[in-house]
Amino acid sequence: MTTTPNSRRGGRASRTAMRAAPLTDDIKPVRPGMAAGRYKPLTDAEVLKIHEAAINVLENIGIADAIPSTLEYLLPKGCKLDANGRLLFPRSLIEHTLEIAGRNFPLYAQDPQYDMEPWGTNTYFGTAGAAVYIADYETGEYRESNSQDAYDIARLVDRMEHLHFYQRAVVPRDIPEASAMDINTCYLSVSGTTKHVGTSWVHPDHLEASLKMLHEIAGGEDKWRARPFVSQSNCFVVPPLKFASDACKCLEVAVHGGMPVLLLSAGQAGATAPAAIAGALVQQVAECLAGLAYVNAIKPGAPAIFGLWCFVSDLRSGAMSGGSPEQVLLSAASAQMAHFYNLTGGTSSGISDAKYPDAQSGSEKGINHALVGNAGMNLIYEAAGMHGSLLGYSLEGVVLDNDTIGSVQRTIKGIEITDESLSIETMRAQCIGGPGHYLGAEQTLRIMQSEYLYPAIGDRLSSKEWKEVGKPAIYDVAHKKVREVLDNHFPSHISEEMDANIRSYLDIRLPREKMLHPSILPATL
Amino acid sequence: MTTTPNSRRGGRASRTAMRAAPLTDDIKPVRPGMAAGRYKPLTDAEVLKIHEAAINVLENIGIADAIPSTLEYLLPKGCKLDANGRLLFPRSLIEHTLEIAGRNFPLYAQDPQYDMEPWGTNTYFGTAGAAVYIADYETGEYRESNSQDAYDIARLVDRMEHLHFYQRAVVPRDIPEASAMDINTCYLSVSGTTKHVGTSWVHPDHLEASLKMLHEIAGGEDKWRARPFVSQSNCFVVPPLKFASDACKCLEVAVHGGMPVLLLSAGQAGATAPAAIAGALVQQVAECLAGLAYVNAIKPGAPAIFGLWCFVSDLRSGAMSGGSPEQVLLSAASAQMAHFYNLTGGTSSGISDAKYPDAQSGSEKGINHALVGNAGMNLIYEAAGMHGSLLGYSLEGVVLDNDTIGSVQRTIKGIEITDESLSIETMRAQCIGGPGHYLGAEQTLRIMQSEYLYPAIGDRLSSKEWKEVGKPAIYDVAHKKVREVLDNHFPSHISEEMDANIRSYLDIRLPREKMLHPSILPATL
Repeated sequence: MTTTPNSRRGGRASRTAMRAAPLTDDIKPVRPGMAAGRYKPLTDAEVLKIHEAAINVLENIGIADAIPSTLEYLLPKGCKLDANGRLLFPRSLIEHTLEIAGRNFPLYAQDPQYDMEPWGTNTYFGTAGAAVYIADYETGEYRESNSQDAYDIARLVDRMEHLHFYQRAVVPRDIPEASAMDINTCYLSVSGTTKHVGTSWVHPDHLEASLKMLHEIAGGEDKWRARPFVSQSNCFVVPPLKFASDACKCLEVAVHGGMPVLLLSAGQAGATAPAAIAGALVQQVAECLAGLAYVNAIKPGAPAIFGLWCFVSDLRSGAMSGGSPEQVLLSAASAQMAHFYNLTGGTSSGISDAKYPDAQSGSEKGINHALVGNAGMNLIYEAAGMHGSLLGYSLEGVVLDNDTIGSVQRTIKGIEITDESLSIETMRAQCIGGPGHYLGAEQTLRIMQSEYLYPAIGDRLSSKEWKEVGKPAIYDVAHKKVREVLDNHFPSHISEEMDANIRSYLDIRLPREKMLHPSILPATL
Repeated sequence: MTTTPNSRRGGRASRTAMRAAPLTDDIKPVRPGMAAGRYKPLTDAEVLKIHEAAINVLENIGIADAIPSTLEYLLPKGCKLDANGRLLFPRSLIEHTLEIAGRNFPLYAQDPQYDMEPWGTNTYFGTAGAAVYIADYETGEYRESNSQDAYDIARLVDRMEHLHFYQRAVVPRDIPEASAMDINTCYLSVSGTTKHVGTSWVHPDHLEASLKMLHEIAGGEDKWRARPFVSQSNCFVVPPLKFASDACKCLEVAVHGGMPVLLLSAGQAGATAPAAIAGALVQQVAECLAGLAYVNAIKPGAPAIFGLWCFVSDLRSGAMSGGSPEQVLLSAASAQMAHFYNLTGGTSSGISDAKYPDAQSGSEKGINHALVGNAGMNLIYEAAGMHGSLLGYSLEGVVLDNDTIGSVQRTIKGIEITDESLSIETMRAQCIGGPGHYLGAEQTLRIMQSEYLYPAIGDRLSSKEWKEVGKPAIYDVAHKKVREVLDNHFPSHISEEMDANIRSYLDIRLPREKMLHPSILPATL
């Protein structure tokens, strides 16, 4: 997929690459989409109570501000407008929706090796967000994020083993016009990675323009529709319980265009959702069920992700706190709600309130991912790089979070219990007439690659060795890894011809040469 | 319990103290010893398989190197020496032991408010360890730990809301003689905190001397026996499956002396325990069951903690990796084994392989505590300050880890599901004719203290505010908090008279004046 100048040289560089090559899939201790679910914050009875309360909300409080087309789709299905102009959803419609809703749909990637099967309790981690600041690679200071960052984050994620998809993480603030911003974000995303991409559009026209491009990249509309490799992150609802008109229009275009939709209910407990975690769960479930009814009224069975993305406020200030333990509970319980409906669920996990990767962010991300991951949410968004309560992005954070996610995946894999792994014969051999330890035991050597996960950058040196190598700070190690990727990894799956073609009819702002390795640029540059 | 110069002044200082005063117990969002158990890495059938394998090991492989007194206690109970001199334990003895074993015994503290009830799935966090290095407060560099550190860590833990007990965490390397080291460590621990203390002794004579002191502090042997506030951390076994002679002698003294014993099986998967996590579980369970049989042969029902403390190797180097995901699984599954037996269980969680508090240590501690805590281990040791794979201690880490543990405790508390918390009426009031948000809602104001936990030092400022206050690094905030405690908190529960008395017959090395606030030292010092 990737061409770097080094890969052409062979010799020492290629031997180094070979030693650093990943384990083959059959021996890897973790793999994308492992089944999780050993952590359950709610009992089955509690899950049912939340479901029933959500139905109650839909039947009796309903959703405000439906646009005409929403009404055209939903009134014939049994929805009613009440005296306040709120759209009420009968239980029977929700139950019918749950019968016909799309399930077990893969999320495709440009490179099929990255296709995802986000159903059951299969669990995938990826980025997301709309940060407007990024910690500048050179200065470390927050500055506004731009198109180059959007592209760089995509290609960094492309090389992170434990990030399984890429959803747009920063806003390219160098593009003020909404239309160009939407289209460029989409192009930079699909150019920067061959993993599944998520992004958003603020107006249906921008989405139509992007779809044309996606058809071309796919090799035709039929090929796009067979393997749609971009999903739409869609805030169809403005919590509490109001439809968002432009987003609803984009939703309709996506559903007609064969693009999977992430139905995002992104309230904030204590601000736009009830402060009580149970109530926040009820509201987001009600909103997403309404969205699901809408999608299925447009096209029965259309792929939609149940996006239970309620955030949490620090109630002292009203500000968002993504790293709070209340956020952990909300996101983890959301996984159980998705399992209850047997729908593909998505939520956020891994946002830090710290401004940079540090002991606080590590802790917040570790706790969130450990519990949301083990709760078995299918798609875990915002999983890497996100700081400053969603406002600040860190490239170094992406590399650090990759290790955190890998570690959490190892816990998801769990403990293998077999007659062999119970190790009675191994114990006997080592203890009776054996060496009295397991260092060179056959079992130890056999499972050291398949059952033990080693961090990509995490430090496990002895303090003596660590001193000898100059006491590298982990942030600096991550920083170096970012440079290594950004200096060398320039995905080439979008050909020069395709790029030129797209630029001929779309206003792509990042110059082509900023997307190529410096050494293969024309000499005149 | 505490006298600081400030508390005598009143006025502004006391108002400040009042504002900073903790919430009353009835409103606090978390409390010590909350019931956990919503994360279960093993199925019930798998737990049973591990139990059966452990019985198999005890019946057929047994434990080597029993000392004469161990044999005197255990041979009459049905144990047998095999041809290799290994002590074999019949299933019937283990089953009988499990019938008569001490259960539901509190672990007492000098201050009864800190008494613990570590049974069921009640979960407590505290320190432990035998680090030989500490990051010096002034220079930040690792240096050998000393008596002053041992005392300072105890009084720092005494002020950390989410640390529920204090087990000795560093070795006072300024005391080379084992006898003085044991006795001083015990005295410094019980002087530095009124929370429950754990420590260890390498020789029974040191323990006898310490017990005399503990009787005096308690106000008599009967009072000590009624409320033993120190437990013995006892490595009675050298994995794999060998008794440790001096530790066994100390064990006997502790049991006779009414001191709870932490039966520590501290192997290391891949080195002194099988590399397969299942096998490591089996071996440690077998070892602890043997220890439990031993304790109950000495004194039926004597308080003993089932110390499933197996560590993990990085199999590439053989070095210990306390921050690994394999460690998480071992420690969390250990909680389930303790629950299976309905015994008070202990394990380690929160060791970082990083040398200092940083993004890596935060992540390792967050993942470990989140899952081991939610697995519901009764006593979680090594929970704060431990770095360098057990070799290096950090005072700043204690303060940071306190926030991590608080956050994990909030997840353990879980989600309150009641008709009120489901919030249907709150939603109706805000959405229909209300303000359309929950910022000032009655529910929001009512639960902002009781359902939301705020970090003690964690940063949740907006990036703008954070910039305005000078972008404080979280490590520096923790550093300042350490200074604040160490400059002001000098526990005075051991009176001057008691201290003088103890020093009259024990070789206490840390001068009394190093245990007092500078301002209340005699002027001549």
